Amino acid sequence: MPRLIALYNVPEDADAFDAHYRDTHSAIVARYPNLRDVQLTKPMGVAGRPAPYHLMSEMVFDSAADLEDALMSEAGAESARDLRNFADAGVTLFIAPDEADA
Amino acid sequence: MPRLIALYNVPEDADAFDAHYRDTHSAIVARYPNLRDVQLTKPMGVAGRPAPYHLMSEMVFDSAADLEDALMSEAGAESARDLRNFADAGVTLFIAPDEADA
Repeated sequence: MPRLIALYNVPEDADAFDAHYRDTHSAIVARYPNLRDVQLTKPMGVAGRPAPYHLMSEMVFDSAADLEDALMSEAGAESARDLRNFADAGVTLFIAPDEADA
Repeated sequence: MPRLIALYNVPEDADAFDAHYRDTHSAIVARYPNLRDVQLTKPMGVAGRPAPYHLMSEMVFDSAADLEDALMSEAGAESARDLRNFADAGVTLFIAPDEADA
């Protein structure tokens, strides 16, 4: 199933980031229409290196059309606006479509 | 289940990258001990933006210990060495442990 993936860079204040994400941003994401699942993971570095990201959010949809609808929804717009409230270290957003044949 | 995730930057020659990945690198990764699954996806940009990565490889293991063993294995070392043959645009590697409670 297609996923919208957000990779958050390591913030200066991880505690403040986590609190905002948990208390505010999660509730916005939960209002995405037809959102099937959200998986949150805390990346770890490989071979003793620091983690390249602080948080990975994977938002799962039944179809590419549902994912696009969520991005265009009121909750999608609010989520984008909310980034400035906690993600000033930067975030990389991309769509992971269904598995490639490559 | 924990995943080892590789995000490959967009290469200058995507066809050469894909050919090397398919014909050489995949076979090395397939030799990781206790590898449970590999999912390959071609990221797409959001809202008309270009994709931030060319390829995402998610290598799934039963446990964090199995993942670490794979990194330390002969196939893990060979995989790291092989990166110079096709991934000169850069690659970001990280471990996605089981879902966070955050």
